[in-house]
Amino acid sequence: MNAAAYEHLLLAVDFAPETELVVRRAQQLKGQFEARLSLLHVVEHLPMSYSGDLVLPDDFDLEQELVDVAKKQMAALGKRLGVSAEDRHIEIGSTGRTILRLAAELNVDLVVLGSHGRHGLAALVGSTARTVLNGAGCDVLAVRIKE
Amino acid sequence: MNAAAYEHLLLAVDFAPETELVVRRAQQLKGQFEARLSLLHVVEHLPMSYSGDLVLPDDFDLEQELVDVAKKQMAALGKRLGVSAEDRHIEIGSTGRTILRLAAELNVDLVVLGSHGRHGLAALVGSTARTVLNGAGCDVLAVRIKE
Repeated sequence: MNAAAYEHLLLAVDFAPETELVVRRAQQLKGQFEARLSLLHVVEHLPMSYSGDLVLPDDFDLEQELVDVAKKQMAALGKRLGVSAEDRHIEIGSTGRTILRLAAELNVDLVVLGSHGRHGLAALVGSTARTVLNGAGCDVLAVRIKE
Repeated sequence: MNAAAYEHLLLAVDFAPETELVVRRAQQLKGQFEARLSLLHVVEHLPMSYSGDLVLPDDFDLEQELVDVAKKQMAALGKRLGVSAEDRHIEIGSTGRTILRLAAELNVDLVVLGSHGRHGLAALVGSTARTVLNGAGCDVLAVRIKE
């Protein structure tokens, strides 16, 4: 007796070029399992990496700007992967917790995300993967991102 | 362009009945990717869960006993999955670190292991999954073990 096929994958994307392999892996599994694929990009609330370095006009809404940029990138990625608009999600919040919440809401059976190792540049990604691994009610595939 | 197929999977097994789904998932991926599958069981050095409760004869080698039991279970599992004897590994040590070491030595591209969530009974399994996720140079699939 074999394991049940994965039916619904959730791919967490950040649109960075080095995460293309994560996207391709999700696309491959989607094909192999003939699964539904949902995409999620999380705009971190109050992104410190930006707010510390930039002097912004008072009326400049950084989060909204980031969401607008993400929408364009998400549209392009969704089109490329054949993911319909209803399965493309852009959320504002903590990346790890938002992935967990959406994974539960969509009742996916596999979350696919990128993960840097301990030698990685981005501690955030490792931390996100740990949060998701700890909290997810479903399987998690952490795709190693090569530096 | 698609992701490269996984060529060599390492499945960390503990022979517990509730981890059967983890085994089946690895078997399924082995078939889909036509990949080599290696099996690893780690006998924890000084297993505290036993040594605290048991009064053992002085000449009783608990580790060796556990290894002997594991050998029988590994033989049965290997036979069932069609994994040759050379791809069956039993090691003594820390589970997480041993998985990482063998994954590197065998140059596998995917580690498959079971993971309890934060509500899980076995904090050890979650901790192992975190160790492997943090340290692995390859992808990691954490298969959720249902309580």
